[in-house]
Amino acid sequence: MGLFSADIKNMDDLFVHTLQDIYYAENQILKSLPDMIEKVSDNDLSMGLKKHLEETKNHVARLEQVFKMHGTEPKGVDCPAIDGIIEEADEIASEVDDKEVLDAAIIAAAQAVEHYEITRYGTLAAWAHQLGRDDCAAILQKTLEEEKAADKKLTAVAESKVNRKAAS
Amino acid sequence: MGLFSADIKNMDDLFVHTLQDIYYAENQILKSLPDMIEKVSDNDLSMGLKKHLEETKNHVARLEQVFKMHGTEPKGVDCPAIDGIIEEADEIASEVDDKEVLDAAIIAAAQAVEHYEITRYGTLAAWAHQLGRDDCAAILQKTLEEEKAADKKLTAVAESKVNRKAAS
Repeated sequence: MGLFSADIKNMDDLFVHTLQDIYYAENQILKSLPDMIEKVSDNDLSMGLKKHLEETKNHVARLEQVFKMHGTEPKGVDCPAIDGIIEEADEIASEVDDKEVLDAAIIAAAQAVEHYEITRYGTLAAWAHQLGRDDCAAILQKTLEEEKAADKKLTAVAESKVNRKAAS
Repeated sequence: MGLFSADIKNMDDLFVHTLQDIYYAENQILKSLPDMIEKVSDNDLSMGLKKHLEETKNHVARLEQVFKMHGTEPKGVDCPAIDGIIEEADEIASEVDDKEVLDAAIIAAAQAVEHYEITRYGTLAAWAHQLGRDDCAAILQKTLEEEKAADKKLTAVAESKVNRKAAS
């Protein structure tokens, strides 16, 4: 999009732009999650992230469904936020050698990803509702709930054992 | 930090690194919030963001206190995540002309910032507790609660009027 043009004319344009933003983000997450999972040592953490990888594929499919319901072709737009969050996750993983500390770092990185998705899906569901598209809002809300649940599970794995093992 | 060196040896190093990450992030937010506030039209939103600017100054001071309690010099490290989130906020603001739609876009951008802070402070408070530093954890927790409250207030302003005005 042009730097000096106002390409987003109304709320519907803003909704579609943000849908494209999270569509790009989900696809970047799909690409980077397998590398993250490979670095994990703790079994429960590994299983949790593998389950979330499957959920993420489903989130992409749901976004395509929302695009279709809206009458727009699914398309991504550059999302510097998720690029930065993933870059930071890669950097930190390269700087940690100890396996148990690395697990704690990976949980923190995965939770930063989850929180980005939580904020975007929360916004999108509210906007869809305001635009009179409760059908789209319901689908976005479903993904939002799964992202929140994934974040809570990561907290539980961290607090029940990973942080303790990393600090010992 | 070196790309091929494992600079983070243990959980305490990881804690300090993440403290430096959010210290950099809070300082970047301090720099960018005034520009964001200037673009706002809605009075309540403007007042809310101005209040959060004051809170942010306090969060920086609290981080400096935690560094001191830990016996470490306050220092920032590059944080590609917050840089990306702020870059995306600037981009979207430049693409929206309509004042009411811009307010909705600014709320979404501010909530992305809040969620990054929520995830980092949540992680840091849990790690401080695990490292036996409940004194540091208590300070980090105080900021965490303020970030969560700021996020909720943004949702309230969006849902009570800004989204409606933007979509009309």
